[in-house]
Amino acid sequence: MYTLKEIQTKVSQLFAAENFNGTPDELYAPIEYTLAQGGKRIRPTMLLAATDLFGGDIEQARYAAIGIETFHNFTLLHDDLMDRSPVRRGKPTVYRRWNENTAILSGDAMHILAWQYLIKTPHHNLHSILQTFGNTCLQIHEGQQYDMNFEQRNDVTISEYMEMIRLKTAVLLAGALKIGALYAGANEADTEAVYNFGIETGLAFQLRDDLLDAYGDTATFGKQTGTDIRDNKKTILLLAALQKGTPQQRLRLNELFATTPQDPTAKIDEVLSIYSQLDIRNDVDQRIAGHHASAMRHLDAIDRPDSAKQPLRELACSLLDRNI
Amino acid sequence: MYTLKEIQTKVSQLFAAENFNGTPDELYAPIEYTLAQGGKRIRPTMLLAATDLFGGDIEQARYAAIGIETFHNFTLLHDDLMDRSPVRRGKPTVYRRWNENTAILSGDAMHILAWQYLIKTPHHNLHSILQTFGNTCLQIHEGQQYDMNFEQRNDVTISEYMEMIRLKTAVLLAGALKIGALYAGANEADTEAVYNFGIETGLAFQLRDDLLDAYGDTATFGKQTGTDIRDNKKTILLLAALQKGTPQQRLRLNELFATTPQDPTAKIDEVLSIYSQLDIRNDVDQRIAGHHASAMRHLDAIDRPDSAKQPLRELACSLLDRNI
Repeated sequence: MYTLKEIQTKVSQLFAAENFNGTPDELYAPIEYTLAQGGKRIRPTMLLAATDLFGGDIEQARYAAIGIETFHNFTLLHDDLMDRSPVRRGKPTVYRRWNENTAILSGDAMHILAWQYLIKTPHHNLHSILQTFGNTCLQIHEGQQYDMNFEQRNDVTISEYMEMIRLKTAVLLAGALKIGALYAGANEADTEAVYNFGIETGLAFQLRDDLLDAYGDTATFGKQTGTDIRDNKKTILLLAALQKGTPQQRLRLNELFATTPQDPTAKIDEVLSIYSQLDIRNDVDQRIAGHHASAMRHLDAIDRPDSAKQPLRELACSLLDRNI
Repeated sequence: MYTLKEIQTKVSQLFAAENFNGTPDELYAPIEYTLAQGGKRIRPTMLLAATDLFGGDIEQARYAAIGIETFHNFTLLHDDLMDRSPVRRGKPTVYRRWNENTAILSGDAMHILAWQYLIKTPHHNLHSILQTFGNTCLQIHEGQQYDMNFEQRNDVTISEYMEMIRLKTAVLLAGALKIGALYAGANEADTEAVYNFGIETGLAFQLRDDLLDAYGDTATFGKQTGTDIRDNKKTILLLAALQKGTPQQRLRLNELFATTPQDPTAKIDEVLSIYSQLDIRNDVDQRIAGHHASAMRHLDAIDRPDSAKQPLRELACSLLDRNI
């Protein structure tokens, strides 16, 4: 069994050793550029940690780990184009550094590469692994479409929002864990439990991301705060405030979220003040704690020694910045 | 064994029976729209014809046939966005009917669907089938990138052009045939021969497409003629003329292909007149005949009764509008 640190080192080495070059260079350079930028590599770490948890050989799962990260980065590449985001991980996004058509075509090639990594290693469970991967990929796109739909709507409920983030964010963590379990030949109950651990961790992770956008320390969070409010994004904070607020507060929030002032400072302050009157930060913290606790229960239910679960427990806690 | 007609009917039935709906509708409606528009369904027909040629069960290969057509249509959907083409098969393209982001996201979902069809049926050759599919998909994107690169270059050689159309067009026909052969468990030599039959047929098919754009009968071709000249596209006609022409003719062609007049009639006429002086139409016809003959030699080399090869022979001839 490996420690979380050892698995993370393994993942870094995998990517350092992998070559994303190819011909023509115009097609492959944006892929290499995207995958060289690192990021936390959460998904491949989860995949290998799950393989290890169930006593599998993480060498067998290594290409799947690369593939799932390649897929994740492909979705970011196309999302950045659709959202017109200029910067990702401190560097110009592909559509800005090159152009829109390059972002489309290189993204598509990257998507194929992801599948090629997934199909690289023959395995007696390969059929289930690929079915899991395909279903996961499609669900992420459904989630992205719901997210786009929600931009046009003013009546999004909290449960619709939770379903959207389940699809857009949580299923990829869960899918990575399930694929890792399938490489190890885990039994059905344990595979389902580790999948559900991923779902709950993913939900908590996304809610925390919403919270940090409003309340995070810019230095440690690495992003500007208040951007979701500035951009009129529907987050759990807004939806909880709309559900809990007085008619006047709801009206005012809807008014504020229909404006895009040049300087958003006053708007952000007023929204945060309404959130504060309604104790929204605490509500969302409670939700995060609930999903985290649920994730831990699924992890506890897995029929493996407690010590073997340490890497996943530690990873989930680090994602939520919680003590173990 | 089935006749070509029977296989084509089978393919039509497959698509008629398949449901491309899903939730959210905004994601799936463009996929259904694209796949409902038909087209010649050449690739799934080739795939099933190859399975049948080698004595396989075409029922086993049916989802792969749907998958390869889904992939082909996904590439058209994204190509139309990148090329800003307003119309495909007489209907508005997805990015026009909906918008750019819908074209990106629904195209990506369609790409996943293609893989899901390919992985649907367990098969002892599934690993090879998926490797073939993955390599083919990536090569098509490399070809598309070369095509985009060539737009910026004035020194494209005929051999570079042939390599580009091999990647962009021919490998998908060849890949479909190889996948069909793998479903039937054909031996290595026969699988390679049917693949090469596909490459040569694909090359001939693309050259004929270039020729028809210049000389086709608008009514039967279904497209306006002279559009490649109007749009300054590098085709085999231009490259052959640049290779064969006098310095004056080359200079004039380069001048003409650097202009985009409001009314392209005079430009098209002058280019066609230079082609005619150089007998380019005949040269390209010779090239097509050469690739077709080579395709037939590969088909002849396959270790199956001649009668079993009739559907593929007929299909290749119909693609080139040649008598068998």
